[in-house]
Amino acid sequence: MPMHAPTNTYTPADLGQALEKLRTTAPLVQCLTNAVVTNFTANVLLAAGASPAMVDVPGEAADFAPVASAVLVNLGTPHADQRRAMLQAVRSARRSGTPWVLDPVAVGALELRTRFAEALLAERPTVIRGNASEILALAGSGAGGRGVDATHDVEAALVPASHLAAATPAVVAVSGPVDLVTDAERSVRVHGGDALLTRVTGGGCALGALVAALVAAAEDDALLGAVTAHALYSVAAERAAASAAGPGSFAVGFLDALSSVGPEDLAAGAVIA
Amino acid sequence: MPMHAPTNTYTPADLGQALEKLRTTAPLVQCLTNAVVTNFTANVLLAAGASPAMVDVPGEAADFAPVASAVLVNLGTPHADQRRAMLQAVRSARRSGTPWVLDPVAVGALELRTRFAEALLAERPTVIRGNASEILALAGSGAGGRGVDATHDVEAALVPASHLAAATPAVVAVSGPVDLVTDAERSVRVHGGDALLTRVTGGGCALGALVAALVAAAEDDALLGAVTAHALYSVAAERAAASAAGPGSFAVGFLDALSSVGPEDLAAGAVIA
Amino acid sequence: MPMHAPTNTYTPADLGQALEKLRTTAPLVQCLTNAVVTNFTANVLLAAGASPAMVDVPGEAADFAPVASAVLVNLGTPHADQRRAMLQAVRSARRSGTPWVLDPVAVGALELRTRFAEALLAERPTVIRGNASEILALAGSGAGGRGVDATHDVEAALVPASHLAAATPAVVAVSGPVDLVTDAERSVRVHGGDALLTRVTGGGCALGALVAALVAAAEDDALLGAVTAHALYSVAAERAAASAAGPGSFAVGFLDALSSVGPEDLAAGAVIA
Repeated sequence: MPMHAPTNTYTPADLGQALEKLRTTAPLVQCLTNAVVTNFTANVLLAAGASPAMVDVPGEAADFAPVASAVLVNLGTPHADQRRAMLQAVRSARRSGTPWVLDPVAVGALELRTRFAEALLAERPTVIRGNASEILALAGSGAGGRGVDATHDVEAALVPASHLAAATPAVVAVSGPVDLVTDAERSVRVHGGDALLTRVTGGGCALGALVAALVAAAEDDALLGAVTAHALYSVAAERAAASAAGPGSFAVGFLDALSSVGPEDLAAGAVIA
Repeated sequence: MPMHAPTNTYTPADLGQALEKLRTTAPLVQCLTNAVVTNFTANVLLAAGASPAMVDVPGEAADFAPVASAVLVNLGTPHADQRRAMLQAVRSARRSGTPWVLDPVAVGALELRTRFAEALLAERPTVIRGNASEILALAGSGAGGRGVDATHDVEAALVPASHLAAATPAVVAVSGPVDLVTDAERSVRVHGGDALLTRVTGGGCALGALVAALVAAAEDDALLGAVTAHALYSVAAERAAASAAGPGSFAVGFLDALSSVGPEDLAAGAVIA
Repeated sequence: MPMHAPTNTYTPADLGQALEKLRTTAPLVQCLTNAVVTNFTANVLLAAGASPAMVDVPGEAADFAPVASAVLVNLGTPHADQRRAMLQAVRSARRSGTPWVLDPVAVGALELRTRFAEALLAERPTVIRGNASEILALAGSGAGGRGVDATHDVEAALVPASHLAAATPAVVAVSGPVDLVTDAERSVRVHGGDALLTRVTGGGCALGALVAALVAAAEDDALLGAVTAHALYSVAAERAAASAAGPGSFAVGFLDALSSVGPEDLAAGAVIA
């Protein structure tokens, strides 16, 4: 495992600067996300220094997207009303140039949301973030996960993720023990983190929201934003795990750590390759 | 800043007595609130000594309002189904004499909910609680906040809040670094609290539910109930902040403190003027 | 109160073995539950070693039930869309032989959900879990609780619970200071736990999900699964209460304890009679 070695694409210092921008600009992230994780997602954004707005009502979602710094669409519990709001939001985001992130939860495992995710792809997400099974399913290979568990390996998703990134086009982030982030031409692996993240519901979903916040902060470099979000998550998870007695205290410490990890901590602690 | 000085309207001891009544009566608060904060809101009510009932289904909401001690209507994620249930609940509450609290989240910033809030105003809320931007928008001045952030100053809301209080008529509470509570004739400022409350999602929304609980406990004095809720929030936030390492541990400690702050602590620690 | 004495039906060691099976099989629990507790429920399942999937969208719920190890249906906030999904899920579960748990929150207190619960009963839940008021209402006696509070005594529910268990047929679990679990022929009481569980929203609701997980793990013995879930809850609550400063820290410690209590701890600490 590479130790703090700079990659060809970014140095850890670049990530620190992106986090610094997040802290100074406090981007407003419109979240259309699932009922299970909406509270945790908002708290993750607030802890990290962004500003959440969970505007997912049809008739409001389109109005808000041009005001937002970024939009997150997460398919965890896609009720009919919310699906309508999602389409309104991403069309409005596309028109106004607001970046948006697609989190295709359990796509491949359930037909209704798989078809809906394909319709959303046509609206050109800036970033697609999922586990290996979800990315494989969206790329047209693999049979999807069971719920939100990753049953496929991250490395197995490299080629399909690159194809999906090129075809959309979008940055594609595959979360796992080692995260993989690619824009088809460049691929960055983010090491670190802690398995306790998989014992807290919304660990992956809230990461999607943080990607949206950092893509907004990184402005013209969505790849840098996505990589920074994953690295911040990893460093904060390690800090929280160091004093956790289980998944309950880990989740609490993780929010504390997202708030206390500064740009210099990220520059010193991020492990990318 | 006045230190523990009695105001013309209430002494801190009055607030202690109102909290004592909450603890002995455990008012049942029907909450029709947003998806993001429903869990935290219920936990805040339970910690403080009230009893939450999140009955917001059309066909049930009206049946429950006469049984409830108070009703909270929070516009954070006003889906069509919930808007129907809200109208049913407040009309039933008005008929049965159940006090109800309106929390106009992001009113002014989004047109759909702004018009809906105006319709709710006609059903005469007992208390209206919001940040300065929301109260200004509801009073017909100002352009509203961006989501749930307060972009206007509390003092700038004094005159519009008084007008809104007189016109409705209702008690109007404006939350901010210093809280302002008015019934048009009397105004009380509540000092204290901690900025960490703004780093936990639902900090303001759960305060609306606590206002409902204390208005029920204070029976014929809604102003006292609203002031007591804000003062309890401030004292509990200070206690939690003293040992918090960030927003995660603050939220946990805040629930502990809402439970451990007693009437005598409130009488000793509330700073009103 | 019996101290660690084996009952006629099960020994604490039987419960330890059921928990061991949960840990090795990680059953996938499909939850159609209320908006207030969905996050806590998923975290309880993850902490205990199960795998949650909150699939409650019409058009998806039926597809998922045959894949799931067990299904939970909780009536806490039964919106029209979710009621449709619930019927789809339990019919599909019944066809595929997937065990399912009914948690009739506030049945008896509200007419709409009471009639809906009766319709669900016809689809033969494997286990029915509620407080005494809810079980009395479902059994056709008593007037129901106010929201989720138990206003009736557990022992008063023994005869109606047995009748309900025989008539459905199902295992019926009545939660209270002492829990009662019966399949009409055999009745087991589970002692222990802590009153702080009643100060955390979702304490009862998440127990329903844990019952589903352990019924899946115990395969052909739903009574053992239900008893084990209640005993694990009690032992974990006691462990968490020992170091809690209030309901906030109790909830955090409870998740930690659900994760750290092992089969041998349960075999040593469960008090059943």
